[in-house]
Amino acid sequence: MKRFAIVVLLFSCLSVFCLSQEPGDFRPSETNVWGAEYPRVDGAGRVQIRVKAPEATKVKLNFWSGPKLDMEKQADGFWTVTTPPLVPGFHYYTLNIDGAEVADLNSHAFFGGGKHVSGVEVPEPGSTYYSIQDVPHGQVREVWYDSKVTGSWRHALVYLPPNYDSQTKVRYPVLYLQHGAGEDETGWIRQGHAHFILDNLIAQKSCKPMIVVMAYGYAKRAGQSAPDLFAKPFGSPEMIKAMQDMAAAFEDDVTQVLIPYIDSTFRTLSDRDHRAMAGLSMGGMQTFQITLNHLDLFSYIAGFSGAGGMFVLGDRKLDPKTDYNGVFADPAAFAKKVHLLWLGVGTVEPERMREGLRRLHTSLNDANVQHVYYESPGTDHEWQTWRRDLKDFAPRLF
Amino acid sequence: MKRFAIVVLLFSCLSVFCLSQEPGDFRPSETNVWGAEYPRVDGAGRVQIRVKAPEATKVKLNFWSGPKLDMEKQADGFWTVTTPPLVPGFHYYTLNIDGAEVADLNSHAFFGGGKHVSGVEVPEPGSTYYSIQDVPHGQVREVWYDSKVTGSWRHALVYLPPNYDSQTKVRYPVLYLQHGAGEDETGWIRQGHAHFILDNLIAQKSCKPMIVVMAYGYAKRAGQSAPDLFAKPFGSPEMIKAMQDMAAAFEDDVTQVLIPYIDSTFRTLSDRDHRAMAGLSMGGMQTFQITLNHLDLFSYIAGFSGAGGMFVLGDRKLDPKTDYNGVFADPAAFAKKVHLLWLGVGTVEPERMREGLRRLHTSLNDANVQHVYYESPGTDHEWQTWRRDLKDFAPRLF
Repeated sequence: MKRFAIVVLLFSCLSVFCLSQEPGDFRPSETNVWGAEYPRVDGAGRVQIRVKAPEATKVKLNFWSGPKLDMEKQADGFWTVTTPPLVPGFHYYTLNIDGAEVADLNSHAFFGGGKHVSGVEVPEPGSTYYSIQDVPHGQVREVWYDSKVTGSWRHALVYLPPNYDSQTKVRYPVLYLQHGAGEDETGWIRQGHAHFILDNLIAQKSCKPMIVVMAYGYAKRAGQSAPDLFAKPFGSPEMIKAMQDMAAAFEDDVTQVLIPYIDSTFRTLSDRDHRAMAGLSMGGMQTFQITLNHLDLFSYIAGFSGAGGMFVLGDRKLDPKTDYNGVFADPAAFAKKVHLLWLGVGTVEPERMREGLRRLHTSLNDANVQHVYYESPGTDHEWQTWRRDLKDFAPRLF
Repeated sequence: MKRFAIVVLLFSCLSVFCLSQEPGDFRPSETNVWGAEYPRVDGAGRVQIRVKAPEATKVKLNFWSGPKLDMEKQADGFWTVTTPPLVPGFHYYTLNIDGAEVADLNSHAFFGGGKHVSGVEVPEPGSTYYSIQDVPHGQVREVWYDSKVTGSWRHALVYLPPNYDSQTKVRYPVLYLQHGAGEDETGWIRQGHAHFILDNLIAQKSCKPMIVVMAYGYAKRAGQSAPDLFAKPFGSPEMIKAMQDMAAAFEDDVTQVLIPYIDSTFRTLSDRDHRAMAGLSMGGMQTFQITLNHLDLFSYIAGFSGAGGMFVLGDRKLDPKTDYNGVFADPAAFAKKVHLLWLGVGTVEPERMREGLRRLHTSLNDANVQHVYYESPGTDHEWQTWRRDLKDFAPRLF
């Protein structure tokens, strides 16, 4: 017991003190390109950005879920700024140079807001669950499938758990895991580290080995033109309408093309008891729409900062008798059919998003619909919330 | 015979006339993000760029192997420009906004020059060999391996041919295929379309099904700091020295870690007769260094616009007696050992690059060293050259 306590103490020391940084000790972010000294992050979570723009008259820094700051011009033609402390996790940002919104070329590119933008990773002291560890690793595969619904080739990423190739008789359950509006099928890997989260959970035997399918969540029917999701403000009625139209095409693509493709390409367990769907923000809305319209196909359902909140119900409560074709009207029948309904939101998300999820949660409670509800402490509408969501959700599957 | 001629004529019409564009008929580039109307390309290969920068005083467009143009400010705060015709293929570009080099957020991001920049695809009328076709597709896998040489986790992409998963008794030969300086392991897929080239060649039975490994070509030994490849001009002695130091660490990573990892992870044919290496530009230099130092491991070798030209020999001829440890001194012994030595370059590449390759080719001829030499007509130090190289090289393998 004593020896165990000492080991724990040593490990805590290593992870919290020895490996962590002090305030003022700035180091290049792990999201930087080869050799880039900036962005830099210190032990307090402050971020320093530096960009060359010798003839610019104004340069601004815009963290999407964080500070918006004017940068200061230095004598050498570089502009610099240091942010207040940011919460741990991945943070999108862009720069505005004389009115042009641009990415910082010191950063790797992350697809968000419908474009390739910049990101910085603020380490979370002691958290190893979403970083690469010395455990068996799954592989992420890129696949292309021909969709008769969209009339186009579509690209998806598929995580296969460790030993998929060597244990050739084993079949696996499948989680369909969707990105948010403005992101794409790469988000759960590049920003979310879903593959490392799964590798680590599987290594600890905290979750079952599973296949994770990450599809491109935009879809237009063959012959139609692409709606501009970003022509109107995020969350506006027009944007939600465009998202819902897209979700209907995506629903057909997932149920008529993608699922049969995955089941014929990989060694899946292809019954509804072994199929889950989850998504963040817009992907949560899509998940609710697709799964609740197709309970013959899915038995595990999760919405991360999305689901049927503001995107479907607006600012009203759920009506269990009529919403979602009345699937919640008989909670006992629903519980028998759906093994898990899971909802999550960050405690400092924008009020409408947070209250939408809380209202859905209380609506489900009032209607006696069994579900799990999780709030991520101190995080916004951002990837740290969704990493925590996946870490809580995945072990409950299958 | 007549019917055949008519079919051919119809097909030519379809591919060259009916499906191609007229000059002045501008359409969004296939490299654009969802919904972006610009960049646009017309049937003559002209490109229109449009970017919002309302308060900027100067915006310039820089095609890396193409025109450098001042853009014109419009009344709506957008800047626009139309280029002269560009040759078909993929073209990197950046914008310069008041002294800041930035990417165009209308374009997908492509890793080149050590950063995520923009690209535009100018279609080549009648060419289908590097686009997705209705043929069986391989998969591209992302893998992570722990390198004792670099003391870090390293990321690689691995193309597996169609039917790899279903024909579980078949073993495959392996081509190691490297990117150029400033690019990374994603280049051969995102810019080069190597997976589509292989899919199409395999479907036509023009090349053997093979595994293609695309590694991250930068390496520093555990505990060392990263050399800045771009501190000095491209092709300068300092840059070449930094590349050579890196190539030595990369050589150990490939031969001591990557090859054993690939051979233990995938169903490879793991003898030297079934292992090839090719690379473009810096990757060609690395290929020559790694393969000629390890003829026990490789028997097929290709340099695309790189190899032992300017990066190794500078402006002198090859000395077959001493260069590369004298492997070319006995051409009969070399031909017995190396099944294929392949060199290629574009006819409009920068003179030093082009003449370096031509000099290497004539040096090898003078030394009676059997090899294949190919010049890509009308193309520069750019991806269209390297797509053509791969299309010529892959069918000669294994």
